[in-house]
Amino acid sequence: MPVDLPTPFVTVDADVLDRNLRAMAATAAERGLALRPHAKTHKCLEIGRRQVGLGASGLSVATVREAEVFADGGLDDLFIAYPVWPSPHRATRLRELAGRVSLRVGVDSAESAEALGTAIPGLEVLVEIDSGHRRSGVTPGCAGAIAVAADAARLRVRGVFTFPGHGYGPSRQRSAQEEEVAALAVAATSVTAAGLDAGVVSGGSTPTAALTTAGPMTEMRPGVYAFGDAQQLELGTCDWTDIALTVTATVVSRQGSRVLVDAGGKALGADRQPWATGHGRLLDHPEARIVALSEHHATVTMPDGAPLPSLGDTLRIVPNHVCAAVNLADELIVLSGGDQVDVWPVAARGANT
Amino acid sequence: MPVDLPTPFVTVDADVLDRNLRAMAATAAERGLALRPHAKTHKCLEIGRRQVGLGASGLSVATVREAEVFADGGLDDLFIAYPVWPSPHRATRLRELAGRVSLRVGVDSAESAEALGTAIPGLEVLVEIDSGHRRSGVTPGCAGAIAVAADAARLRVRGVFTFPGHGYGPSRQRSAQEEEVAALAVAATSVTAAGLDAGVVSGGSTPTAALTTAGPMTEMRPGVYAFGDAQQLELGTCDWTDIALTVTATVVSRQGSRVLVDAGGKALGADRQPWATGHGRLLDHPEARIVALSEHHATVTMPDGAPLPSLGDTLRIVPNHVCAAVNLADELIVLSGGDQVDVWPVAARGANT
Repeated sequence: MPVDLPTPFVTVDADVLDRNLRAMAATAAERGLALRPHAKTHKCLEIGRRQVGLGASGLSVATVREAEVFADGGLDDLFIAYPVWPSPHRATRLRELAGRVSLRVGVDSAESAEALGTAIPGLEVLVEIDSGHRRSGVTPGCAGAIAVAADAARLRVRGVFTFPGHGYGPSRQRSAQEEEVAALAVAATSVTAAGLDAGVVSGGSTPTAALTTAGPMTEMRPGVYAFGDAQQLELGTCDWTDIALTVTATVVSRQGSRVLVDAGGKALGADRQPWATGHGRLLDHPEARIVALSEHHATVTMPDGAPLPSLGDTLRIVPNHVCAAVNLADELIVLSGGDQVDVWPVAARGANT
Repeated sequence: MPVDLPTPFVTVDADVLDRNLRAMAATAAERGLALRPHAKTHKCLEIGRRQVGLGASGLSVATVREAEVFADGGLDDLFIAYPVWPSPHRATRLRELAGRVSLRVGVDSAESAEALGTAIPGLEVLVEIDSGHRRSGVTPGCAGAIAVAADAARLRVRGVFTFPGHGYGPSRQRSAQEEEVAALAVAATSVTAAGLDAGVVSGGSTPTAALTTAGPMTEMRPGVYAFGDAQQLELGTCDWTDIALTVTATVVSRQGSRVLVDAGGKALGADRQPWATGHGRLLDHPEARIVALSEHHATVTMPDGAPLPSLGDTLRIVPNHVCAAVNLADELIVLSGGDQVDVWPVAARGANT
């Protein structure tokens, strides 16, 4: 049956989602790369299980709490793809997790290696390097030194990883991906030269995924590809037909050449890159623009001459950054052929700790 | 006892909150204005009750769902301060609400007046006018025509309202407030000239609150003043000592001159006005800047020469826009004198419908 819910609500087109998951799985398989999708995008057990069912080696997660949620859901191979600091609460939870699933975490300093090794001896780690995004991670040539410190701290070093987040910009994908590969090659060599294991060489993101190949990389970790979003549309790294998730909103006001809909930053997320054309896009009106965003409302303008939607009409909004929009929803309404077929809880919503 | 929780977590200093609530209540009382605080900021029953206990005439809310949550919590005088379109689900819920609390909603077109009157005969409405923010609301001189349409549709017209959102900019508060007053005066006259009731003349926001006086205004609706945030700090409309809410995060990485903490856009919100100096501020390091924001992390730089925090240190972050940060939290940890004294659920978190 068609969806009959108060707006705003979030829908996922299961057919488009399935096509996106299969396409990325095929890309990874063809290129000889392990695929470890980032689950921070969807935060859904059902989607994580589908990804693993289609061949993913496991999932990447953002936080210890996300790892706990997915472990509770039966996902048993998890990588916390950030440097983890083992504060007392977190150390206890990491020990518990490491006892029941295959767990790896990121490390990017000798000091955090020492703290992690003291708290959770034998924990598997990947050394994070910075390939140009300037967030976390050491310079590639220092990876070996961190690996040695980790090994001395009784951690089990399994390789290196990076996030080429600087690929989120117009025409930045190729250069970011080249920098990523070069940095990972240096890092892997640095770890191997120290006599330690660099079997996992992990990188990737949705913007750079189409350019990613094996050697030195062994693994890719895209997340957004499952749903697509307005950022990927505007970067040219997905098509309109790849958009699997939208937020449905109702037109509640019409003034002059603009309409106001009842979904704002608290439903869509407020992420806006400097190069974005607005605060999201409209799936059925590619030329429309979301020119302003309040907490509960978005202001939409239509191209010159196009009729304005009527009061009470619903519009399907493609969020700028789908990870932020999902984290604001309690559930995803699942559609197939336009009919509601399921409801998936956003199991890891708000799982920030 | 001191807070002992995994980061990130959100704390409210109850002493600062109480001072903020009392100060705004006193300002409104001195000026002869009714105070109807916007509850979308705090989404907490406990704070709504305190506001009413200190003399607020009722609460403003953003959505029908927020109204339901506060009505369930015993708050019985609510104004949905936006144009509401009575889709079938929403009409049913509005009828139910209007039967158990004093309810008003906004209306900004003859068409929505007709629809509301058909769905909920006798509902009280205020006509929304645009005083310069260019979001919703009719031009002030049209308020009378909308009031006539509402009256003809069997709605009970009680006055006019606006939101001077264009006061959110450096040095924009005075001009926005003057435009607000001028627009409300025209609108009230327009409604009165049509022989209808303009007894409520409502406006206001936290940035303009200090400038708001009675005549023609009868009511003010600030929200953020309860907690303060980095936007208000940078606009000069609150002081550091007025900040009642922070997000505590842990330093998880140090690279060069920057540190990374474990709270990002999914905890702080991603709102950033063009004039903001960064993605939030640090309560204990006024000169530090949050120069980048990811979903789960924020990158902090310290002023030249200042020592970098250590791995494992916690920092208290003042979000740019506190309404967005609160909506990402399930609960607020309440402190007094530095000790945890209570936990308040964010009862209306995600109440977007």
